[in-house]
Amino acid sequence: MDISTAYKDNNYKIHVAENILKSQLSEYTAQYDNVYYLIDEHVYGIYKNSKLSFIEAPLVVTGGESFKYASPLMHTMEELLAFGIKRNDLIVVIGGGATGDAGGFIASTILRGVDYIHVPTTLLAHDSAIGGKTAINSKHGKNLIGAFYRPKAVIYDLDFLKSLPSSEVLSGFGEVFKHAMIHSPELTEDLFQATKETIDLKTLTPFIIKGIETKMTIVIEDEHEKGSRKFLNLGHTLAHAIEYKYKIPHGQAVMLGIIASLYISNQVYQLEIALDYYVDYMKHHGYPVGLITDMDVDEMLELIKKDKKNHKSDYISYVLFKDENTLTVTDIKVSDLKMMLTKLKERI
Amino acid sequence: MDISTAYKDNNYKIHVAENILKSQLSEYTAQYDNVYYLIDEHVYGIYKNSKLSFIEAPLVVTGGESFKYASPLMHTMEELLAFGIKRNDLIVVIGGGATGDAGGFIASTILRGVDYIHVPTTLLAHDSAIGGKTAINSKHGKNLIGAFYRPKAVIYDLDFLKSLPSSEVLSGFGEVFKHAMIHSPELTEDLFQATKETIDLKTLTPFIIKGIETKMTIVIEDEHEKGSRKFLNLGHTLAHAIEYKYKIPHGQAVMLGIIASLYISNQVYQLEIALDYYVDYMKHHGYPVGLITDMDVDEMLELIKKDKKNHKSDYISYVLFKDENTLTVTDIKVSDLKMMLTKLKERI
Ligand SMILES: NC(=O)c1ccc[n+]([C@@H]2O[C@H](COP(=O)([O-])OP(=O)(O)OC[C@H]3O[C@@H](n4cnc5c(N)ncnc54)[C@H](O)[C@@H]3O)[C@@H](O)[C@H]2O)c1
Ligand SMILES: NC(=O)c1ccc[n+]([C@@H]2O[C@H](COP(=O)([O-])OP(=O)(O)OC[C@H]3O[C@@H](n4cnc5c(N)ncnc54)[C@H](O)[C@@H]3O)[C@@H](O)[C@H]2O)c1
Repeated sequence: MDISTAYKDNNYKIHVAENILKSQLSEYTAQYDNVYYLIDEHVYGIYKNSKLSFIEAPLVVTGGESFKYASPLMHTMEELLAFGIKRNDLIVVIGGGATGDAGGFIASTILRGVDYIHVPTTLLAHDSAIGGKTAINSKHGKNLIGAFYRPKAVIYDLDFLKSLPSSEVLSGFGEVFKHAMIHSPELTEDLFQATKETIDLKTLTPFIIKGIETKMTIVIEDEHEKGSRKFLNLGHTLAHAIEYKYKIPHGQAVMLGIIASLYISNQVYQLEIALDYYVDYMKHHGYPVGLITDMDVDEMLELIKKDKKNHKSDYISYVLFKDENTLTVTDIKVSDLKMMLTKLKERI
Repeated sequence: MDISTAYKDNNYKIHVAENILKSQLSEYTAQYDNVYYLIDEHVYGIYKNSKLSFIEAPLVVTGGESFKYASPLMHTMEELLAFGIKRNDLIVVIGGGATGDAGGFIASTILRGVDYIHVPTTLLAHDSAIGGKTAINSKHGKNLIGAFYRPKAVIYDLDFLKSLPSSEVLSGFGEVFKHAMIHSPELTEDLFQATKETIDLKTLTPFIIKGIETKMTIVIEDEHEKGSRKFLNLGHTLAHAIEYKYKIPHGQAVMLGIIASLYISNQVYQLEIALDYYVDYMKHHGYPVGLITDMDVDEMLELIKKDKKNHKSDYISYVLFKDENTLTVTDIKVSDLKMMLTKLKERI
């Protein structure tokens, strides 16, 4: 399946299928003098004698989130420059969302921008590889330094997902679930049905594709996050605080955040979304829902306030449903939020 | 004098005049919740009790080129994040080309981009503040890491130039001279006449403005340096090597580079540009023309080869005149270049 972006210009393709890496990549690399491969060390460890054996002299980078800091980033930049990288060379970034974020940032700033292709290797990266956001972390928070920079292509070879540890599958699935919710109640219900018993990668492909399409529609509408792109933060307000405090994978925290968003939507817009239906489903699949009961609401609120990129004193912007089909961004008073989160704790 | 850019979108103004900083700036800062000032320490040292006394709590950054490295850059980024900078805040960068390059890069990457205004304080910065290139240096060369990122405005308060040391005036004047040459033989001749005896800042204003306009016309045509923007590199091929080897200010090296470009143009295109006219003028003003006689041609060629961002094995791209009015980019064989530079050494 090939999905094409629909920006005004500089469009690119997202190729999604099993076992496409080598053949698909060769169609692009042929156009460049030199190609540099940045590969997550865990991914390279698993695939160096199989799927990735065709790659000579890769730059193996520190695995996952640990790459998203200034010092490993600069180290890799200097390595690329030492090799004599030129403006018309290509960087291929192979790894999960973290490697993609930092690798994309490198591509955006080295020589003021060289072409790059992202090869996502996690389920979560069906999200992170779409939309052209790149970033690294600061001492003061995640993703605070970065650039908007589009790749030349995304090659999503689903074969990679087979080696994902189950906690990473749960994490990535959190974003698949979120995208279904943003898309429509119908798609959400289909996903519920398809994953009633187990989350099986084989049945997920159509939902991954829908997820990519949903995210793409939104980011094309609002590339630089001035309006509708905020809907993609469904569940993320509380999720970031939980993720920070309890060090659980991002997408798992998003699932817990979605519970909070649904609860708050019910309160603020007098809806009757069946919370238990969601909670039971998430518990069944092993999401750590109990952390909602454990959390210290004041501590969460402090983290939420610190996390905001756009400031408005005593209010928190929250992505909510205003009816079953419609998302909205609502400013909630911190004191009201405190009350609702406290009630949610008891309710779970 | 206000000059407006003419990009397709995101245009901004370049305000050029004496004593405009405070009043002009206030028209912009009023639109922002928070304004952060990054100021070159030398500039702040000179003006903190006068022109810059209205600024509370500036971030004083290490002076000149020493700021253009990853470590001071990251330090300042973390400081801004510690202050809680938000997407809708403004950064004002006050200093020469180096502070502008690194400050602009910070603005482009912090929170994936916040607005910034550049307040250039050197003569050379009439060049560097135009065109939206930002950058820092790598171990492997200057300006190898950066971004294309436009400011919201440039406020060029010519009052700052009064405190420039004469070697920096000579340096900045090198780029004024280059822009006149790129513009036309007529403007070049006018500039020769106006600066026959001394380079007096008071008489330079119209040439500074012409320089800004000349550069702007070219960078708007070719923002991302695929074609005509290369003409701005007139004199720069040899200049970068001389600058690196002899540690002289950039614009002074450009003047020496221009001599080489004229000599090579005469050879390659059988022109009769009066080289001595230029050489005598430059000597008169104190440019270190003797370095051309001193240089080791092989060493220069090695540095030139390393400097190239766009690769083509045994050739060097050189900006030349193909007639008195017309610039062109010509690939010169390294061996031919060696011969010509060797002859030039003897000729000076
Ligand atoms: N740019 C965006 O729009 C965007 C959106 C969402 C998330 N993100 C970012 O994405 C990151 C999270 O993504 P992620 O979950 O993919 O993280 P990740 O890249 O850290 O990968 C998670 C772990 O799985 C390992 N791994 C990767 N592929 C594997 C494979 N095929 N088999 C076995 N192990 C594998 C990694 O080494 C790592 O340890 C975060 O840094 C987040 O900020 C970015
Ligand atoms: N972005 C671009 O398109 C572009 C173009 C040309 C040059 N540049 C860059 O610009 C830099 C050179 O610019 P520059 O010559 O302005 O360098 P600079 O910023 O290093 O300033 C030169 C020196 O003058 C001092 N100074 C600055 N303003 C002063 C003032 N008003 N009075 C007294 N001293 C003052 C500085 O502290 C420094 O020591 C280089 O880093 C070069 O790479 C960028």
